[in-house]
Amino acid sequence: MAEVKTVNLTPTWREFPRTLLRGVGQVMFQDSLWTGLFFLIGIFVGAYLEGPQFGIVAWGALVGVIVSTVTGYLLKLPDENGAQGLWGFNGVLVGCAFPTFMGNTIWMWLALILCSAMTTWVRTGLNNIMSPWKVSSFTFPFVLSTWFFLLASRLFHGMPPEWMSTPELPLGHVGHLDMNFISLVEYWLKGIAQVFLINSWITGIFFLLGLLVCSWRAALWAAIGSAVSLFIAIVWQGPGADIANGLYGFSAVLTAIALGATFCNSNNWKTWIWAILGIVATVFIQAAMNAFFSPMGLPTLTGPFCIGTWIFLMPQYKMFAPSQN
Amino acid sequence: MAEVKTVNLTPTWREFPRTLLRGVGQVMFQDSLWTGLFFLIGIFVGAYLEGPQFGIVAWGALVGVIVSTVTGYLLKLPDENGAQGLWGFNGVLVGCAFPTFMGNTIWMWLALILCSAMTTWVRTGLNNIMSPWKVSSFTFPFVLSTWFFLLASRLFHGMPPEWMSTPELPLGHVGHLDMNFISLVEYWLKGIAQVFLINSWITGIFFLLGLLVCSWRAALWAAIGSAVSLFIAIVWQGPGADIANGLYGFSAVLTAIALGATFCNSNNWKTWIWAILGIVATVFIQAAMNAFFSPMGLPTLTGPFCIGTWIFLMPQYKMFAPSQN
Amino acid sequence: MAEVKTVNLTPTWREFPRTLLRGVGQVMFQDSLWTGLFFLIGIFVGAYLEGPQFGIVAWGALVGVIVSTVTGYLLKLPDENGAQGLWGFNGVLVGCAFPTFMGNTIWMWLALILCSAMTTWVRTGLNNIMSPWKVSSFTFPFVLSTWFFLLASRLFHGMPPEWMSTPELPLGHVGHLDMNFISLVEYWLKGIAQVFLINSWITGIFFLLGLLVCSWRAALWAAIGSAVSLFIAIVWQGPGADIANGLYGFSAVLTAIALGATFCNSNNWKTWIWAILGIVATVFIQAAMNAFFSPMGLPTLTGPFCIGTWIFLMPQYKMFAPSQN
Repeated sequence: MAEVKTVNLTPTWREFPRTLLRGVGQVMFQDSLWTGLFFLIGIFVGAYLEGPQFGIVAWGALVGVIVSTVTGYLLKLPDENGAQGLWGFNGVLVGCAFPTFMGNTIWMWLALILCSAMTTWVRTGLNNIMSPWKVSSFTFPFVLSTWFFLLASRLFHGMPPEWMSTPELPLGHVGHLDMNFISLVEYWLKGIAQVFLINSWITGIFFLLGLLVCSWRAALWAAIGSAVSLFIAIVWQGPGADIANGLYGFSAVLTAIALGATFCNSNNWKTWIWAILGIVATVFIQAAMNAFFSPMGLPTLTGPFCIGTWIFLMPQYKMFAPSQN
Repeated sequence: MAEVKTVNLTPTWREFPRTLLRGVGQVMFQDSLWTGLFFLIGIFVGAYLEGPQFGIVAWGALVGVIVSTVTGYLLKLPDENGAQGLWGFNGVLVGCAFPTFMGNTIWMWLALILCSAMTTWVRTGLNNIMSPWKVSSFTFPFVLSTWFFLLASRLFHGMPPEWMSTPELPLGHVGHLDMNFISLVEYWLKGIAQVFLINSWITGIFFLLGLLVCSWRAALWAAIGSAVSLFIAIVWQGPGADIANGLYGFSAVLTAIALGATFCNSNNWKTWIWAILGIVATVFIQAAMNAFFSPMGLPTLTGPFCIGTWIFLMPQYKMFAPSQN
Repeated sequence: MAEVKTVNLTPTWREFPRTLLRGVGQVMFQDSLWTGLFFLIGIFVGAYLEGPQFGIVAWGALVGVIVSTVTGYLLKLPDENGAQGLWGFNGVLVGCAFPTFMGNTIWMWLALILCSAMTTWVRTGLNNIMSPWKVSSFTFPFVLSTWFFLLASRLFHGMPPEWMSTPELPLGHVGHLDMNFISLVEYWLKGIAQVFLINSWITGIFFLLGLLVCSWRAALWAAIGSAVSLFIAIVWQGPGADIANGLYGFSAVLTAIALGATFCNSNNWKTWIWAILGIVATVFIQAAMNAFFSPMGLPTLTGPFCIGTWIFLMPQYKMFAPSQN
């Protein structure tokens, strides 16, 4: 089906750091090393602000993007997009997720390296399956591979599930939520920061700036995505603590950039409504997956973004084509 | 892959109510407004018989079929089958499911509208994926979309999971089951009524009549499907209360119509055995999904029908083709 | 997509027992009746050694392989591989799994027969879906169909889940593990024996001999697979009792044979590393699925092998092709 091409990949070592930064930027669909640089600074600042023991999250991110990118070169994957950072964006998320949820042991780090590398070929396989469906695998290689290791941490005590939530039946607690303006802005920025699993509103500012240097439209939609998801989660009376930590925002932010900017060919009121609907649906999918994974104590990661965006992209090429005649 | 066609859709407003009724009929594969009318009356009668507070289920059904059908026109989907009710059958089921399981709040109704609309484009996407596999998505757009919102209701207190079962580990209670003839007939009719989530044997009669005005064969197989599933669930000693409420019947009824009437090209003893096997398998898949979703307290909806029918249809075009030479 | 061919299948009844034995051998990818014979003897020996009440596991295996193979002939499946045992290997596993996990009732046996037969057409359907992805369904028809019935046994008291583990939230207990040399060899052999759900190191020897008479390379990789998985599970401090019973080995053994011998076209150090990585990943997927299914008390069966091998095979035809220029 997909043709096998041999591509002349000669990464000079001067190019390599740029490829890494582009990999960080591609998490939010930006093929820009400057975006990646802002993101990486935001990750380091946010991680160390949470406390010195969380600083390792940032180093994990760095290890993850290096390992997954190098894996692409080692496997000589015939992927002309490697230099655009498309091997790195899953790895950097693996690197953020592992120390965020698991204890800081040597076995956790070895697993982090294996999982980061795995995302590169899982992506090749999933994209191959999905290409006839007119969608890409997005961050799902990260999501799927990381689910394996986070679930395994429940039984493998060498990498304990130290920061994961306790498995429990989904019985639903509301909890209190401060609703003054300053707090709301904080939740809104945290929704953006949590794309890289960072719980800091300052990081959210770095991420917005990083988007802005590459595409004002992506920055605008990220802002809209977090705002709309915050609004929906509050109105539907979701769990207070999770809303305050931006945990209903991050998937919606990615859906917003995907539907509002990256995969949007025209720019009329129809596509605006379409993107807003996609953001709203992603918030419900986020809550649904939170409830579904509650008995296993498994985080959804960016799974709700993948599912939400697939649902809104898959039929699109059939839908908007005739209406643009 | 699938060719994009522009179809001249000019629904006069005189046609629209007929399209809606066909949508209701298509839940059991009947492209007939009379079938739909019988079904709709059955839904209203059954819903109000359960108690005045359940009457909203019937109004939900009406809202659902209207929203999902209108969505098809708004998106200008190049689907020549729209007028045959194929945009409406997922929506009407969403409309039945939401007030059946969730509390009667304004947020539940807004979610119902979003979810009904969503089924129309989820169907386009899923059919696109499944067309190479020689099957259709059936009611799975309803099942998938509704799962999202029902699970979300565990955490979003604006639309509480008021009538859903409590999440619990699947430990299995037998429970008593009255086995006199009158009771058995009641269970058998409720198995048919539960296709639209109505717990009333009178509705089952309306549904059988509705099938009969369009296709005696579909009515026959619906009757066989409910009877066989009742027999299997009793012999294998399933949970008494669920059997009495027809909850092992509804998926099997749909599998029966699909395999015995709709997607059955020939009519010999081989296809009879095949359809019976499909019904029996659907009963086990129903129990399996009940157990699997028990810790989340999630209803299976018509998921077992989709899986059972896919399993029996997918290999069929390879199987029966040579044997009919 | 896949072309429909009519194949002249005239199984003389002298051929039939050989086809059955090849079906048993195909569980580990060997098209050899002698391999199948060794496996079957190993199953009988191991089952009766566990205690006379477990002897029925071996008879289940025999019934399963007969039913699923006969089903292939009855359906006149245009599968030129039928005679190579490719209809039987899912059925023999169903036959091992049912009496291993469920109580010995007439309803269990009837379900065993239905489920064994089902695997044959589920395989046709799944292979049809997966052929564009360059992979086969492996033992997944067995896994999927058996999951349905094992889950159903939680609610259907006619076939009680007598030997299945109790549903519980995955909270993780380490447990003690004897680490002397003799014990380790025992665990290592049990890892191989558990491919057919037999908990006996003697059966492991029979299985290794069975592989050896057909392919030394398959035997070597089975041995490597069990050893590597044992090493990883111990180093990452998995649950002692499960490791001792070989429950982290069986999926890895199958992945090892698949990646190291069966689907490996070249034999250089790259493919060795690739296969080892696949084995390691399978161990984590095994733990992940154990944790995920814990609230339902559902065994993973050989699901981790299927997922692990798919992940490592799907991108391969793109990867190794250019590197072999």
